[in-house]
Amino acid sequence: MENIAAVLYGNNDIRLEKYEVEEPKENEVLIQMASVGICGSDVHYWTKGKIGDFIVKEPMILGHESGGIVARCGPGVKNLQVGDRVAIEPGVPCRVCEYCKSGRYNLCLDIIFCATPPIHGSLRNYYTHPSDFCYKLPEHVSLEEAALLEPLSVAVHACRRSGVTAGCCVLVLGAGPIGLLNMMVAKAFGATKVFITDISDSRLDTARSLGADYAVNIKNHTELEMIKEIVQATNGGPNITIECCGAEASVRLGILSTKSGGVICLVGCGPDEVKIPIINASAREVDIRGIFRYANCYPIALDLVATGRVNVKPLVTHRFSLSETVKAFETAKEGKGIKIMIKCSNAA
Amino acid sequence: MENIAAVLYGNNDIRLEKYEVEEPKENEVLIQMASVGICGSDVHYWTKGKIGDFIVKEPMILGHESGGIVARCGPGVKNLQVGDRVAIEPGVPCRVCEYCKSGRYNLCLDIIFCATPPIHGSLRNYYTHPSDFCYKLPEHVSLEEAALLEPLSVAVHACRRSGVTAGCCVLVLGAGPIGLLNMMVAKAFGATKVFITDISDSRLDTARSLGADYAVNIKNHTELEMIKEIVQATNGGPNITIECCGAEASVRLGILSTKSGGVICLVGCGPDEVKIPIINASAREVDIRGIFRYANCYPIALDLVATGRVNVKPLVTHRFSLSETVKAFETAKEGKGIKIMIKCSNAA
Amino acid sequence: MENIAAVLYGNNDIRLEKYEVEEPKENEVLIQMASVGICGSDVHYWTKGKIGDFIVKEPMILGHESGGIVARCGPGVKNLQVGDRVAIEPGVPCRVCEYCKSGRYNLCLDIIFCATPPIHGSLRNYYTHPSDFCYKLPEHVSLEEAALLEPLSVAVHACRRSGVTAGCCVLVLGAGPIGLLNMMVAKAFGATKVFITDISDSRLDTARSLGADYAVNIKNHTELEMIKEIVQATNGGPNITIECCGAEASVRLGILSTKSGGVICLVGCGPDEVKIPIINASAREVDIRGIFRYANCYPIALDLVATGRVNVKPLVTHRFSLSETVKAFETAKEGKGIKIMIKCSNAA
Amino acid sequence: MENIAAVLYGNNDIRLEKYEVEEPKENEVLIQMASVGICGSDVHYWTKGKIGDFIVKEPMILGHESGGIVARCGPGVKNLQVGDRVAIEPGVPCRVCEYCKSGRYNLCLDIIFCATPPIHGSLRNYYTHPSDFCYKLPEHVSLEEAALLEPLSVAVHACRRSGVTAGCCVLVLGAGPIGLLNMMVAKAFGATKVFITDISDSRLDTARSLGADYAVNIKNHTELEMIKEIVQATNGGPNITIECCGAEASVRLGILSTKSGGVICLVGCGPDEVKIPIINASAREVDIRGIFRYANCYPIALDLVATGRVNVKPLVTHRFSLSETVKAFETAKEGKGIKIMIKCSNAA
Repeated sequence: MENIAAVLYGNNDIRLEKYEVEEPKENEVLIQMASVGICGSDVHYWTKGKIGDFIVKEPMILGHESGGIVARCGPGVKNLQVGDRVAIEPGVPCRVCEYCKSGRYNLCLDIIFCATPPIHGSLRNYYTHPSDFCYKLPEHVSLEEAALLEPLSVAVHACRRSGVTAGCCVLVLGAGPIGLLNMMVAKAFGATKVFITDISDSRLDTARSLGADYAVNIKNHTELEMIKEIVQATNGGPNITIECCGAEASVRLGILSTKSGGVICLVGCGPDEVKIPIINASAREVDIRGIFRYANCYPIALDLVATGRVNVKPLVTHRFSLSETVKAFETAKEGKGIKIMIKCSNAA
Repeated sequence: MENIAAVLYGNNDIRLEKYEVEEPKENEVLIQMASVGICGSDVHYWTKGKIGDFIVKEPMILGHESGGIVARCGPGVKNLQVGDRVAIEPGVPCRVCEYCKSGRYNLCLDIIFCATPPIHGSLRNYYTHPSDFCYKLPEHVSLEEAALLEPLSVAVHACRRSGVTAGCCVLVLGAGPIGLLNMMVAKAFGATKVFITDISDSRLDTARSLGADYAVNIKNHTELEMIKEIVQATNGGPNITIECCGAEASVRLGILSTKSGGVICLVGCGPDEVKIPIINASAREVDIRGIFRYANCYPIALDLVATGRVNVKPLVTHRFSLSETVKAFETAKEGKGIKIMIKCSNAA
Repeated sequence: MENIAAVLYGNNDIRLEKYEVEEPKENEVLIQMASVGICGSDVHYWTKGKIGDFIVKEPMILGHESGGIVARCGPGVKNLQVGDRVAIEPGVPCRVCEYCKSGRYNLCLDIIFCATPPIHGSLRNYYTHPSDFCYKLPEHVSLEEAALLEPLSVAVHACRRSGVTAGCCVLVLGAGPIGLLNMMVAKAFGATKVFITDISDSRLDTARSLGADYAVNIKNHTELEMIKEIVQATNGGPNITIECCGAEASVRLGILSTKSGGVICLVGCGPDEVKIPIINASAREVDIRGIFRYANCYPIALDLVATGRVNVKPLVTHRFSLSETVKAFETAKEGKGIKIMIKCSNAA
Repeated sequence: MENIAAVLYGNNDIRLEKYEVEEPKENEVLIQMASVGICGSDVHYWTKGKIGDFIVKEPMILGHESGGIVARCGPGVKNLQVGDRVAIEPGVPCRVCEYCKSGRYNLCLDIIFCATPPIHGSLRNYYTHPSDFCYKLPEHVSLEEAALLEPLSVAVHACRRSGVTAGCCVLVLGAGPIGLLNMMVAKAFGATKVFITDISDSRLDTARSLGADYAVNIKNHTELEMIKEIVQATNGGPNITIECCGAEASVRLGILSTKSGGVICLVGCGPDEVKIPIINASAREVDIRGIFRYANCYPIALDLVATGRVNVKPLVTHRFSLSETVKAFETAKEGKGIKIMIKCSNAA
C-alpha cells in the first residue's frame, strides 16, 4: 500500500510525498481516500501560508472535505466495516470540555481539525480517523457527494443557527459555493423564497439554475438602491439574511435589508473588523450571529443528500487526480468553476 | 343582496334561512362567501349538538373553513379593497390579554371563533370579519385553497410546536384530512422521512400518492408489533410523532415509538382521559405537547400553498352548493372522500 | 380639575401649560398622574430637539416613566376601578400587525409611545391611557416604583433576550441607571456572578452597594488590559454581556470579553455606526443582539418589585414637583444622582 | 490503603466487604470517598432488588451521591491535583453517540451510572472516576454539599427543561428531598412565587422554613378542591408545575392546575402507567415533559451552592459512618428526616 500525500511546505509550495500508512488505533478506521474537495481556506494557506493566527510552520498535508472507503478497522470499532464508503467529518473535538458536553463541540478549544495547522489533512491515499466521525453512505450516495458534505454542513449549521424554517424569506449574499449551498439548504429547511446576490453574472445564472427565486447583480448599485430593491422584492425585507461574502459592504447591506426582528448570519470571511450600522440593527432587533464550522450537522447534511432534498452534484465543475494537485489548486485560485474535486484513487 | 345561511338548530337539524346582510363596522370587511369546507367538528355539532362544554343552545350558523371576496370595506380598513379574494382566519381574539400580547392568541379566553357556540359561522352568502384576520390571496391561489388554509394552519401549528425541521423523521398517526395535511406540512418543514399509519387502506393509498415515504395499516397488529416495525423502519424511532387520531391506543403507540429526546404532538381528539406509559415517556424524555387551533399560522399556510410547497388541491373530493348543505353534511358523516367543500356563490 | 403639563417647545424650552382634561374613551382610563421619572431620552429631546429621525416639530408633552391613580374609567374597562394605583406602560401598539400578533409588539411600526414625537407624554396632572397597558399595583408598591417599572422593563427585556439564567456570569458595561437595573435584574434572573464597569468611581460604589460582585473603573486602561482582567476575573469571560453605554470602545470590549458561545446584548445608545471585531465575534459564535424598548415585560418587572426580588428604591436620588420641572431637567442634565423623579400631585 | 465497600447482594442484604484499591487509568482519578448520600433509588434496590428493568443480579457496590478527595491522578489528568476536594457526577456517557455529541448525554444508551446494575457505585473508601466528571470544590463548599449536588442537579435539569425564569409562578407537588430542592432551585432561577404541596405537615413545615411562599397539605381534599385552591392562590394557576411525587393523583392535579400555555415537568417516579386528562392538557397547551437524570447541570448546581443562591445544608438530617451503612438505610427506609449522609472517612 502506497500512501502519496499532498503536502504544503509554504507559500505556493505543494509537494507530493510518500507517507507511511498509519495503523488505526482504538476506535479509529484506516480510510482509502477517494474524493477530496478544495476549499477556499486550502487555497488561502497555499497562497498566503496562513489564515489569521493559524500559520503553516511545518509541512502540512492538505485536505478536509473528503470521503473514502474503510480499509481497516482499529480495535473497538463497531459502527463500520471494511469496505464501507464513508464521509469524513474533519474536526475531532476533545470530548471532555463544557462545549463538547453541551453540544457545541465546534467551539472546543482543543479540537483537532484536518488541514488547520499544525494538523495534517486527508489529501492522500490513506488516512486514519475516529470511526464515530465517519458516516456510512447509503449505496446511492457517491464519494464526491461525501466530500461535499463538509461545506454542506457549514450551510446546515448556518440555517439552524439563524432559524430558517417553513415560510421564511431568506436573502443570501454571495453566490460562491458556500452561498449556493446555503441557498439550497435554506430551501430544504422550508424557506419559501430565496433571494441571492453576487457581482458575477455567471454565478447568478448558476444560482438561478439551482433554484434561486430572485438573483441580482449588485455591482454598480449603491447601498440605498440595493436595500430598496431587496425590501421591495421581498415585501418588507427577508426574515433571515445569510452573509456569505464577508466584505464590509455586504455585512452592512445584510443588516440594513433584513426585516425587523430578523437575523443576519455571518458565514463569509472578510476583514477582521467592519463598521456596522449598529443603531439600525439594535432598534429593529436584527440579531447578528456568526458561525464557526458546525456541530451535529453531518448526519443532517447526509440525510438531505440521500433523500434528494439537496442536489450537490451540479456544484462539481472540475476533477483532477491526486498527482495533478497543483493544477487543481491553480484552477481553484483562478476562480474557475464552483467546486474542484481531487480524486485520490480509482474508487472515487 | 340576498343572504342565505346554513343554520344548525340542534341534532340533525340544519336549516337554510335568510339573514340580514350586516354592515361592516370599523376595521371590518363584508365578504361575499365563496368556498366553505366541512370540518369534523361541524359534523360533530350536527350529530351530537355539542363538543365537550360547547353546546348548541341557540340556532347557530355553521362554517369556519372559508374564503370569499371582499364586497364592502368598513371605516379604517387599509389592507384590503373591494374585490380582493381572501382567506378568513375564523378566530378573533380579544387583543388585550396576556396571551394575545405574547403571541399565543389561540389561548385567549375571550376569543370569538366561527361556528363554536354561540358564535355564528361563515356558511352563508355574506359575512363580516375584522380585516386583519382576512388574508389577500395571490391571483393563482383559489378560493377553495383559501378554505383549506384553516386545517392547513392546524398542521403548521403542530409542526412548529413540535419543532419539525430539516433532517427530521416524522411519524403521523392517522391519515384523515388532518393527518394528510400534517404529513405534507412536515415535509415542507424539511422532514426527510415521513411515515404514516391508519386502519384504512384507501386512506393510506392517498397518503402514498401525496408523498408518504412509508404508509402502513395498523389494523390487526399488536402494540408491540407496531412499535417494532416503526422503530426498525425509522432506524431508531421517529424524532417527532404527530398524533392525528386521538384514540388511547394511538397516543400510546406514539409515545412508545418516538425516539428518546423526541416529541409527540397531540392533534387528534379522542376521549377526555387516556392511560399513558408515563415512565417510558419521562425516562426517555419524550415530550408530550398538545395543540389548540393555531396562532400566527395563516400567513405561513398561505405562503406554503402560494409557493407550491404544499398542494392541498387533491384533498377536495366532493363539492356541493349552499342549497345542498344537508347533503354535503351527510356525505361528510358517511366518511366518504377527504374534504367536502360547499360553494356559497358562483365566485367559488 | 386643573391639568398642568410640561411641554417641550424645542431646544431648552420647556413650558408649563394648562391642558384640557381628556375624557377616557372606550377601554381607556383617566389617570391622575403621581410620579414621572426623567429618562436620558427626555433630556436629549430637551437639549437637542431630536433623537435620530424623531424630531420635535410641534410642542410635545414630556414624560413616559410614570405611575398614577385611576380617576375615571371609560366604557368597557373591566380590569381597573377608580382609585386603583397603576403603573403605565407608555407604548401602545396597533394590535393588528404581525409583530403585535406574534408577541413582539415593541417592533410594531404604528406603536404610539409617550413623549416620542409627535406623541404627547404623561408629565402632567391628568392623562388618559388604554386600561390594558395600566398595571394595578399591590398596596405595598409605591407610585415611584411604578414609574421605575419603565426602565426596569428595559432591563427585563435585555435579560430575557440575552438568555440570562441560573448559573450565568454576566458583565454589565456602564453603571448608569440602565446599567444598574440590568445588574439587579440579571441577579433576579439567576445570574450567580455580575461584574460591572464604568468610568465613574461613585457610580461603581453605588453598583457595589446594590450587589455587584465585581465593579471596576475602566478609565485609563487599554482594551487589552481590560479584556485580560475581565476574562481572568470571570474565569474565562462572561456568558452574557449587557452593554449599557453605547460607545464604540464599550461595544468592542463587550464582544472581545464575552466567552465563546455567549451573547452581547446592546442596550446603550451611542453613535449610529461602530467598528466591531466581526471575525472574533463570528469565529467564537458570540451573538450580537440589540433591544428596542420591551414587550410583555411590565408584568414581570412589577412582579420582581412586588416580591422584593429587585429593590429599585435606592435609585431615586432626587425629587421635584411638577412646577420645578425645568430644575429637574437641569439636575438630570448635570448627571447628578441616578434617577430624578417628578411629583405631579400630592398622591405621589 | 484499605478499601471497605457497601455491597448489595440482594433484597435486604447489604454487606461491608474489602475491595482492591483500583489504579486510576488514563484521565481518571482515584478518590478517597468522604460523603455519600442515600437516594430513594438506593433504598429501592435494597428492598426490592430492582427498579424496572434494572435488576441486581450480581453483588453491586451502592452509592451515587458523593464527594471525596483526589488521592491519585491517572495519566493525562490536567484539571485536578492530589488533594483537590471534588463532587462526583456519577454518570459517564459514551462520548461518541448522537446524544453525547448534541448535549443530551443523559439519554446516552451506553451511559455507565454508579449503582445502577450492574455498575458499582461509590459507597466505599476508594473509588476511581474520569476526572472530567469530577468538579473541584471551592474551599468554602463542604464535601457533604458535594454529595448533595447530585439531587440538586436533578432539580436544575427539571427547572431548565421546564423553562423556569424570572417572574414565574411555580407549583411543586411533593415536599420530599427532590421536591424541596426543586423549590429552592426554582427560586434561584427567578421564580417569584413557589407553592408546594404534600401530605405530611412536617415536610410542609420544612418547606416553609426553606422559602415556600405557600405550602398546603392536600390530604383529605378532592381534586376539584385542590385545583380551585391552587388556581385561586396563584391567580390563575402556576406557569410551571414540577411533579415530584409520581402518583397518578398528583400528575392529574399538576396538569389540571397549570395555567394554559404552561408546563408540567415530571420528576417523581410512580406507576408505569397513569390515566391523564389529555384533552384538558391539549386544549390548554399544557406541555408534559419528563426528565431523566441531568446533563450539564453539575457546574450550575455547584455554582448555586458556592454563591449561596441555594443552601442545601439544612437538608442533611442524619449522618452515619460507613460501618453503620445498614442502619443508615434503615433510617432512610423509615422515612425519617430528609437526607441521610454516610461518611466514608474522617475527611467528610
